[in-house]
Amino acid sequence: MSRFTAPRLVLGALGVAALLATGAVQAKGAEPVSPIPAAKVTSPGKVELGKKLFFDPRLSRSGFISCNSCHNLSMGGSDNLKTSIGDKWQKGPINSPTVLNSSLNVAQFWDGRAKDLREQAGGPIANPGEMAFTHDLAVDMLRSIPQYVAEFKKVFGHDELSIKEVTLAIAAFEETLVTPNARFDKWLKGDKKAINAQELRGYQLFKGSGCVACHNGPNFGGTSFQKMGLVEPYKTDNPAEGRSAVTGNDAERFNFKVPTLRNVELTYPYFHDGAADTLTQAVDTMGRLQLGKKFTTEENADIVAFLKTLTGEQPKFMMPILPPSSDKTKRPQPFE
Amino acid sequence: MSRFTAPRLVLGALGVAALLATGAVQAKGAEPVSPIPAAKVTSPGKVELGKKLFFDPRLSRSGFISCNSCHNLSMGGSDNLKTSIGDKWQKGPINSPTVLNSSLNVAQFWDGRAKDLREQAGGPIANPGEMAFTHDLAVDMLRSIPQYVAEFKKVFGHDELSIKEVTLAIAAFEETLVTPNARFDKWLKGDKKAINAQELRGYQLFKGSGCVACHNGPNFGGTSFQKMGLVEPYKTDNPAEGRSAVTGNDAERFNFKVPTLRNVELTYPYFHDGAADTLTQAVDTMGRLQLGKKFTTEENADIVAFLKTLTGEQPKFMMPILPPSSDKTKRPQPFE
Repeated sequence: MSRFTAPRLVLGALGVAALLATGAVQAKGAEPVSPIPAAKVTSPGKVELGKKLFFDPRLSRSGFISCNSCHNLSMGGSDNLKTSIGDKWQKGPINSPTVLNSSLNVAQFWDGRAKDLREQAGGPIANPGEMAFTHDLAVDMLRSIPQYVAEFKKVFGHDELSIKEVTLAIAAFEETLVTPNARFDKWLKGDKKAINAQELRGYQLFKGSGCVACHNGPNFGGTSFQKMGLVEPYKTDNPAEGRSAVTGNDAERFNFKVPTLRNVELTYPYFHDGAADTLTQAVDTMGRLQLGKKFTTEENADIVAFLKTLTGEQPKFMMPILPPSSDKTKRPQPFE
Repeated sequence: MSRFTAPRLVLGALGVAALLATGAVQAKGAEPVSPIPAAKVTSPGKVELGKKLFFDPRLSRSGFISCNSCHNLSMGGSDNLKTSIGDKWQKGPINSPTVLNSSLNVAQFWDGRAKDLREQAGGPIANPGEMAFTHDLAVDMLRSIPQYVAEFKKVFGHDELSIKEVTLAIAAFEETLVTPNARFDKWLKGDKKAINAQELRGYQLFKGSGCVACHNGPNFGGTSFQKMGLVEPYKTDNPAEGRSAVTGNDAERFNFKVPTLRNVELTYPYFHDGAADTLTQAVDTMGRLQLGKKFTTEENADIVAFLKTLTGEQPKFMMPILPPSSDKTKRPQPFE
């Protein structure tokens, strides 16, 4: 579930930049960003079940694509491709956002069309361009596997096994995927040696230039929707419309959820179309298009150095072992 | 490396069945199969590096397919598909054999064209229908990533980073993927309660009917090449020729490496063409085509029950975290 209920304010980046320049939010103890705590696991059985489902390619029509295919936990919770590969190698419409720390986002997907992780989890399973299955077929598959049936019953305390339980378990696992103890978080908590002089310069530039107007909060983003190309228009072949496709409000056209910058070193390429291969490119584009500012080579390098201090401890867990299909489980037919 | 140097005898299954019927190899302490020991890890750094490589999709042209895609360690080291999915969703020519306990096989691939795991590991990377990359491009990718360069140097003690080091590391990881302590192994070691009466009947049938003529040794197979369809011809649309494609010897046409039966509960579907969805079907087909024997429903169920006692402890390991690409790493272009 989303931990934010704040209204989806669309702040003018330049206005906030001006505010920041006054030092109003730069006072000690009032940083516009904050460390993230380690995940608190209250229902380990549900998390363990969710982990299995997250890794189970039988939730796709082909039997080949799992949640982890595009939100690969070995690779920063993303697939490191411009846009993802779906059923029958379809070209995905948008860059796969990281699942890491995603519970801290105001909503899910680039256009925020899912209000929380549970709602999100059902999306790709039934999307014809992604896992290309149906909720009914996914649930039929799970019901045909005695070990899954028993595990759902144990976790939820009832016999019902529907897409609700499936997505609740996946969301419970995803809520554990936070990445605490980044070097920058250590610095925020008072360890002044945790980042070096260049990285600190980068953070000061990040704050002073207005980046933090959108990339704020514990997730360095994920708290609002913003227009891509605020000062200068963003040029792309990608047809995604962003927030307006959800709300029908044309004023929100090309507004996308501000992505988290946590672990950004791992989640290349950048932007909703994956057009920026490197952090250097991304920082340059953001400066020009969102802030009307052309960073010098040195400034850009300082910000990139700072951004790399946001890599936290990656989730540590045992690779799950999936319950085998039974004779009754319908076999996937990926080539039909 | 292969641990077997035995000649590749093609035993007449019926002849051995007759031998078995005399009880010659049924004496206490002379079972034709044996337990497998846990893996001995002598070079943990190499294993850890190999694990990363095994899970790294950047070893494929698309950046999407890793060794684990088709030898999924959450699913018995296989992909549970009839034939695998390759680059751009190409239909693979053959069923993906499990990587579990594969170090115990006399050779690798169904046709034995690789003499050991190291030689095997290089195959799929460069196969245009599988990972569709080249060894040179795979090595270029790794050399562009400072963390990989440092790790290779630490593990191998020299600066050379070639396909040799890559495949040595992958093979070192794969050698750890053994599955000890199956219930049947516990029974073999003297725990008579480890299997029940039906499972024991199944084993006795398995021995007495001649299955063990081919499925023998610690891996219940993997020790020889045998003709698929010995008594009756095997009908399939799959064009794989088997051993003759490697040796050029037409007498070996349709000879395939006998697959391991360890973890066979997890490695469905069965046979080189993946045509048998269930163990029941596989046992029936094997009985008729290889042994000229039609098992009754009860006999079949007993053998299937026995086969399920061969599921061992699955490899337990932490999901690896892969080193991120650098700005110099060439980005994959899966849709070009």
